[in-house]
Amino acid sequence: MHSKLDVAILGATGAVGQRFIQLLDGHPWFRVAELVGKSSAGKKYGEAVNWVLDGNPPSSVTDIVVKPLDAKLDSLLVFSALPKEAAVDREPQLASEGHVVCTNASAHRMAADVPLLLPEINADHVSLIDIQRANRGWDTGALVANSNCTVMPLVMALAPLRQFGIERVIVVSEQAISGAGYPGVASLDIIANVIPYVPSDEDKMETESIKMLGAYSDARVLPYEMLVSATCTRVPVIDGHLVNVSIDLASKPAIDDVIAAWEGYTGDERVAMLPSAPERPLQYLPQVDRPQPRRDRNAGGGMMTSIGRLRECTVLGYKFAALSHNTIRGAAGSSVLNAELLAVSGYLHNFQPEVAVALP
Amino acid sequence: MHSKLDVAILGATGAVGQRFIQLLDGHPWFRVAELVGKSSAGKKYGEAVNWVLDGNPPSSVTDIVVKPLDAKLDSLLVFSALPKEAAVDREPQLASEGHVVCTNASAHRMAADVPLLLPEINADHVSLIDIQRANRGWDTGALVANSNCTVMPLVMALAPLRQFGIERVIVVSEQAISGAGYPGVASLDIIANVIPYVPSDEDKMETESIKMLGAYSDARVLPYEMLVSATCTRVPVIDGHLVNVSIDLASKPAIDDVIAAWEGYTGDERVAMLPSAPERPLQYLPQVDRPQPRRDRNAGGGMMTSIGRLRECTVLGYKFAALSHNTIRGAAGSSVLNAELLAVSGYLHNFQPEVAVALP
Amino acid sequence: MHSKLDVAILGATGAVGQRFIQLLDGHPWFRVAELVGKSSAGKKYGEAVNWVLDGNPPSSVTDIVVKPLDAKLDSLLVFSALPKEAAVDREPQLASEGHVVCTNASAHRMAADVPLLLPEINADHVSLIDIQRANRGWDTGALVANSNCTVMPLVMALAPLRQFGIERVIVVSEQAISGAGYPGVASLDIIANVIPYVPSDEDKMETESIKMLGAYSDARVLPYEMLVSATCTRVPVIDGHLVNVSIDLASKPAIDDVIAAWEGYTGDERVAMLPSAPERPLQYLPQVDRPQPRRDRNAGGGMMTSIGRLRECTVLGYKFAALSHNTIRGAAGSSVLNAELLAVSGYLHNFQPEVAVALP
Amino acid sequence: MHSKLDVAILGATGAVGQRFIQLLDGHPWFRVAELVGKSSAGKKYGEAVNWVLDGNPPSSVTDIVVKPLDAKLDSLLVFSALPKEAAVDREPQLASEGHVVCTNASAHRMAADVPLLLPEINADHVSLIDIQRANRGWDTGALVANSNCTVMPLVMALAPLRQFGIERVIVVSEQAISGAGYPGVASLDIIANVIPYVPSDEDKMETESIKMLGAYSDARVLPYEMLVSATCTRVPVIDGHLVNVSIDLASKPAIDDVIAAWEGYTGDERVAMLPSAPERPLQYLPQVDRPQPRRDRNAGGGMMTSIGRLRECTVLGYKFAALSHNTIRGAAGSSVLNAELLAVSGYLHNFQPEVAVALP
Repeated sequence: MHSKLDVAILGATGAVGQRFIQLLDGHPWFRVAELVGKSSAGKKYGEAVNWVLDGNPPSSVTDIVVKPLDAKLDSLLVFSALPKEAAVDREPQLASEGHVVCTNASAHRMAADVPLLLPEINADHVSLIDIQRANRGWDTGALVANSNCTVMPLVMALAPLRQFGIERVIVVSEQAISGAGYPGVASLDIIANVIPYVPSDEDKMETESIKMLGAYSDARVLPYEMLVSATCTRVPVIDGHLVNVSIDLASKPAIDDVIAAWEGYTGDERVAMLPSAPERPLQYLPQVDRPQPRRDRNAGGGMMTSIGRLRECTVLGYKFAALSHNTIRGAAGSSVLNAELLAVSGYLHNFQPEVAVALP
Repeated sequence: MHSKLDVAILGATGAVGQRFIQLLDGHPWFRVAELVGKSSAGKKYGEAVNWVLDGNPPSSVTDIVVKPLDAKLDSLLVFSALPKEAAVDREPQLASEGHVVCTNASAHRMAADVPLLLPEINADHVSLIDIQRANRGWDTGALVANSNCTVMPLVMALAPLRQFGIERVIVVSEQAISGAGYPGVASLDIIANVIPYVPSDEDKMETESIKMLGAYSDARVLPYEMLVSATCTRVPVIDGHLVNVSIDLASKPAIDDVIAAWEGYTGDERVAMLPSAPERPLQYLPQVDRPQPRRDRNAGGGMMTSIGRLRECTVLGYKFAALSHNTIRGAAGSSVLNAELLAVSGYLHNFQPEVAVALP
Repeated sequence: MHSKLDVAILGATGAVGQRFIQLLDGHPWFRVAELVGKSSAGKKYGEAVNWVLDGNPPSSVTDIVVKPLDAKLDSLLVFSALPKEAAVDREPQLASEGHVVCTNASAHRMAADVPLLLPEINADHVSLIDIQRANRGWDTGALVANSNCTVMPLVMALAPLRQFGIERVIVVSEQAISGAGYPGVASLDIIANVIPYVPSDEDKMETESIKMLGAYSDARVLPYEMLVSATCTRVPVIDGHLVNVSIDLASKPAIDDVIAAWEGYTGDERVAMLPSAPERPLQYLPQVDRPQPRRDRNAGGGMMTSIGRLRECTVLGYKFAALSHNTIRGAAGSSVLNAELLAVSGYLHNFQPEVAVALP
Repeated sequence: MHSKLDVAILGATGAVGQRFIQLLDGHPWFRVAELVGKSSAGKKYGEAVNWVLDGNPPSSVTDIVVKPLDAKLDSLLVFSALPKEAAVDREPQLASEGHVVCTNASAHRMAADVPLLLPEINADHVSLIDIQRANRGWDTGALVANSNCTVMPLVMALAPLRQFGIERVIVVSEQAISGAGYPGVASLDIIANVIPYVPSDEDKMETESIKMLGAYSDARVLPYEMLVSATCTRVPVIDGHLVNVSIDLASKPAIDDVIAAWEGYTGDERVAMLPSAPERPLQYLPQVDRPQPRRDRNAGGGMMTSIGRLRECTVLGYKFAALSHNTIRGAAGSSVLNAELLAVSGYLHNFQPEVAVALP
């Protein structure tokens, strides 16, 4: 019989920390054993947390006493929902102590030896861990990141189009409030309003995307060669980031070829069998007014990206809309999927997950 | 002593019709004398209307009995808030009967001899009326249109940049619900959601804009030569259409030159003294997170366009955001300003407005 | 092996009709076989419906051709999401033809021989069907109603307090937009607003509640003797009706006794084992700021009522808040639960559901 | 010629502080001379403030350097938008130094010698200042409060009904987010949701109301004898607090008499001529679905209370809805009106306002 692997969650009382707890409740491989927080340290989780998701925290975690940020941890696998400032030092420190850290923080995403994983499109970047361990003298430890929540739907939609040569991208996002955490956006700022600016996200769109779409070669990731120009706006939506994209494709494919590229996209076959992987990584919706955040964010349990409205762009060639659930696929859910990929790739020390289907 | 000119409003009970009434209440030159509606015909306006603006309808109109759509009208000047289908035939018919029709409907905007006016930027297009009258055998009658409500902020922001040569434009709108009229967008569709599609507005963005920015020459308007690619989305905002714009300017001006072009823009001097003209047609906001629909739509009594966030676009050159009040500047208010321009230009038969400052 | 019972849905393309389809998808006893609509008749459901719930309609129904309202139906069991006007004649007609009609319409709720069921609190009212069949000369047919969506949380919260003698109730509701169907409430009316009036709901609160809480005795339901005064308001919430209640209880119980009455309430034991019954019919939430529509409406799959904030009312005695999901527990879900109760009570002709636990 | 009186604003950068600045811009009697803040001290107001109202701060204040909370002030008249904790000590201290403090803070509202003014209904309470000065040894100083923002519409609606003898009141509020200040309510908590709890407001409804409606007699205010039971909820509305009220009136007036009492209510005649007084203190709206926060909050420049939906309550007698703008009439606007009353009552030392109409 296979036993589950204990995991710790850093920043467990925040909005993304809560998503980690929700998604890991009943997970077939992992079991939440340690919760780490700052102001909540020393309290029982059920008493410390201001649960902002639906319902109440799972009963499996309410009695866990929250540990302080600098506590020594027992769990090999650590999920981090820390704010950037706290993540800068603590995450590599934990990795150096032997922990495998799957982080949602932006602090280390662009480090050359840190994989910025989106398993369906760049599972091979996982090999950067070997480089990372060699570089930094880490043994069992590792540091693996998932992307910014707005970069995510863009990159998932672009990945199947790499075959056509993506040269230029202009993207305007309409982002949900949950992307700013809790308390995050003040209601006086956003109800019946749009804020045409999201601090630092435009830069991330332009840099993280080319790393994620890049090829792993010769012990490094070569950034994908394309120009990205991003505008990020905040709208009064709870969950679900929508991106409106114009693209210039080198090979000028027919419109049906672009749709076929999306519909036929399955991603890495090792990934499709992971517990948190959606049936398909993306779907193309034929309706003229989709995807919509409220109606499509939960596709595939919040792990599937929805694309729609592909049509000609008189300036760049094509334009379309794409949508992902920002706190599931764009944050905690992606991080859990990353950890599952590490598990089947042998990066979680001697942990052997119970895998339904034999790996190739 | 100057007396006011009687005006009629077509489609008076709809959302835009109500804005006409609100804006004309207390107007120094015009007086609402006739109201025209379809299902409300025969009832007193105060009883027929489902007033969707703040407060209640002005007491000056509540006792006016609504006339049917085919009623003979006494007023020389007619404002039309008809839906497109109703406008197609009725508007030219009224013009042929001698009425000057200032319409917000899209039906005739693109007709070659119909001025598509935004007075601050193309007041000279008004001369098309002479062509129109000659073509159609109209005497005192005329048909003049204002643009679509989403085209409006784009065109106002682009007008001062014509000096740099505008070559390509990619624009993504975030449009308020009032743009769809009443009952318009169902609350189940839009609360806490985005609809990434607004029927027919993308086409209008791409065609009306080049007509409005074009030059009047040799008895016609030459479309401005630029490529426009538009994406139109609906967001849960009451009033105020925001456009996120990327532009390619031929002469590659410095960023300060672009801002200076906006800040120095006054528009046609005849227009600045019209009663409904804002102090300045546009303002550039220095804050990083402006313009915002709820906070900036009422600038200049809802007649001023607010621009912000000018910065480099890695793909096209520059990008920025612009905002106008869609039912004031983007609809009824623009139509009233058009009528004021016609008045001082001698197109309202023998009506002489009381103008504070002598015209050149 | 037990086979599933075919069912028909009237008003299948409306908002409540869609909930019926969503809740019956994969139902262990019932299978959607016929869909009935008015304007959509003759079209495939997948093409006719404007799906307003999350995602897309289940693939099991998209190819079903919608039948007209007067079509002869093959299914014994018929769920009705008809508007009141259409329900008045059609529902009894179907019952007279031998169909068992479980309706969400208000048309027949107050008829003396129509059970107004909320199975956990008045399952014995089901015996009214015998009276109804005798009265009306119906054989296998029957007509059974569930309550108005706002009455539902009030009645569920009051039922366990009948032991204390409920004498007077003042209730103010804050109702979700989905209660008005689709297109229903115009977004221009409700975004960032409250409408302090919901047509006809206040009356229903005052009449349906006393029928539902009444005792079945001597072949009729004796209305519960209490005074109810209701105010119904609409708020910009998608799903979930909240009621703020003040009550005067005859026996003046201690506050802990009231909470204990709720926490110990299990309802009729036959009901607890029905497929759509929640684990418990209601829960008492200890947090000072709960229940909240967005966070608590999905408790028990949308079938559980959440109560909170019990405290003294200086005027009537106690006050509290209660919440139910209005289109699940307050509409389609209740109707499905009613049908399940009919099945185990022998009112669905010779249909024998596969019941896990033996009935007493 | 009369010159304006310099005034100071405490808590000037907060949401209510901003309303003070907005309402005092262009005030005929008062001129904003000093701004006081905590974290913003030492900065120019225009740079320190995060302006949450429409548009931008008035240019008349942007260059004023914000003073620290303990700064010595030059202005006789001080408006306070301090949080309760900061107000407790600082407000009486300023009064003891000779300043007249008109405060929106709750800290001293219930002190026996502090007038809790709503000028149209209890202008005579102003005489408490004489008692206060005698008690506390203050010379020119004074401390005057306005009520909580939710108490305000209730009390204004009840005041004209005192003639019928108000015995019992049950009230359920639906409060706007601006009542919680800035950043105040997190958008993740309130978008598409209701929070059925507003900290401490229910107590204030029950205590401040009876003080405000009480009679001034024999050097003190006798609380009005009635029972009030309040439930306070928060809804996703920007501005405007709606209260749903059931009342028991001793003399059982006819429904038309109640409406007549409201419609004929003018309030104290000295008050009607004050610059910030609305034409009438309240209006009764005949429409079945009014008042609504978004449509009626700005009646009378935000200073008028709107009442509607008077009908029978089966439990207490009558029920109705009332609405006031919470940050204008319910906060800063009321405080300014209070100061105007002090001016014409001779409590602002030797300041003589320019009053259009002679006082009796």
